Amino acid sequence: MNWRARLLALDGMMPALDDTGRLAWGTLADAPEDAELVFLGFDAGENGGGRACFAAVPPQGDPRPRMANPQLWNLMAALSPEDLALYGGARSLVDWHARHRFCPACGGPTRIAKGGWQRDCVAESGGCGAQQFPRTDPVTIMLVEHDGRLMLGRGLGWPEGRFSALAGFVEPGESIEEAVAREVLEESGVRVRDVSYVASQPWPFPSQLMIGCHAHAESDAVTVDETELAEIRWFTRDEVSAALAGTPDAPFTAPPPHAIAHHLLEWWIAE
Amino acid sequence: MNWRARLLALDGMMPALDDTGRLAWGTLADAPEDAELVFLGFDAGENGGGRACFAAVPPQGDPRPRMANPQLWNLMAALSPEDLALYGGARSLVDWHARHRFCPACGGPTRIAKGGWQRDCVAESGGCGAQQFPRTDPVTIMLVEHDGRLMLGRGLGWPEGRFSALAGFVEPGESIEEAVAREVLEESGVRVRDVSYVASQPWPFPSQLMIGCHAHAESDAVTVDETELAEIRWFTRDEVSAALAGTPDAPFTAPPPHAIAHHLLEWWIAE
Repeated sequence: MNWRARLLALDGMMPALDDTGRLAWGTLADAPEDAELVFLGFDAGENGGGRACFAAVPPQGDPRPRMANPQLWNLMAALSPEDLALYGGARSLVDWHARHRFCPACGGPTRIAKGGWQRDCVAESGGCGAQQFPRTDPVTIMLVEHDGRLMLGRGLGWPEGRFSALAGFVEPGESIEEAVAREVLEESGVRVRDVSYVASQPWPFPSQLMIGCHAHAESDAVTVDETELAEIRWFTRDEVSAALAGTPDAPFTAPPPHAIAHHLLEWWIAE
Repeated sequence: MNWRARLLALDGMMPALDDTGRLAWGTLADAPEDAELVFLGFDAGENGGGRACFAAVPPQGDPRPRMANPQLWNLMAALSPEDLALYGGARSLVDWHARHRFCPACGGPTRIAKGGWQRDCVAESGGCGAQQFPRTDPVTIMLVEHDGRLMLGRGLGWPEGRFSALAGFVEPGESIEEAVAREVLEESGVRVRDVSYVASQPWPFPSQLMIGCHAHAESDAVTVDETELAEIRWFTRDEVSAALAGTPDAPFTAPPPHAIAHHLLEWWIAE
């Protein structure tokens, strides 16, 4: 066992990279004196000895969860799959801690517990002792098919020509299949049947679990929910293939390769 | 449209039933003067007119989420599927509101918003304005198979002979498939491959989304995590069938019919 520990280098919520384009690491001495540390796990290490990996929680939380941004997209596209998974998990945890320094049940201060996988309301300072746990929010994202064509939507504020699969949070009391049907009905007015699971992917902006599904539409007559989407269109297999290939005459711009929507479109073409 | 609204009758978190065994309802006049109301949706109503359905948030939150209990199991087994879904969603939401009266980012008071699908930190009284949303926690529950036999576990404190599928929360940064593999490895020491999705079910105690999966084990040599489980055993198809049928000579007691584990075992037998 190698007892040396290392600390993930973060610039705010952005990853810092070393000369080789990998995630940069420091030592625990780099953390501020009173910083809370989240345990990320052991790395593969050298000569079989894994080092304990930590990330420091920033002292000041932001009222809003940190979303991704174009600069981060570029960094992420350059990271190795292992580094991407490690950074994603660390970002999600650290951001959650920074935004949960108080107890939602009584308003008292909380402190980090169980290596960062929990926060406890501090009973000794008059708190109620409630425990909080990092959240993971399940989101359905679905390919809806009718007569060989696929329903894709353009979100409000998206550039002209950019389309992706419809998506929405699973609500309390719903199964995955019920969430898919409700979300498609709400956003497009279309009823679906035969919902099936395809693949899943974590999406730590701030803490989504994307659950990719496929469904058949009863009809292709759409009524766009204009509070959510700018437009909805149906695309053929050839059109989706052209968009994935990024050909100049492609009828729309596909989602980027690191998004599960891209993977779902590739799955549909391969079917 | 029928403008009359109705209020779900709750005794603490327990459902109140009418003479016919259905969920009991009152009017909004039954709610305490200052009670926060959660909008549950419109019912089917009579003559095509749906009534708005609400539930009142109890004034005092409990630091711990409300788990189910034997009395509730009995009540739930008697409810119709529609009533069960409605009660489950309402219970999950109302319990969440009662335990989130304060802002986790700044400790200030929060108030209900968007009909109960959100809580806002009150900026006018000095709060930071952060928004909170009800949570839904994805949990994987998995049938692990090896050479025609199924791995089932007995939890700590469970009665002798009671077995069910292993299960665990999806952690930040994991896909569903990764969560299944990690959880099985942690609890049983067994590596799995070919994880596939089977079915999902909401489980509002307090707010789980159960994601049922199947996987193949590389080996049947188990190392029980004794902090989580009392024992792990492998069962044949005949043994699982006998347990589901509840025959006197069944080698174990199966999970109850309303649990997704029961449905997964039936799916495995039908395969």
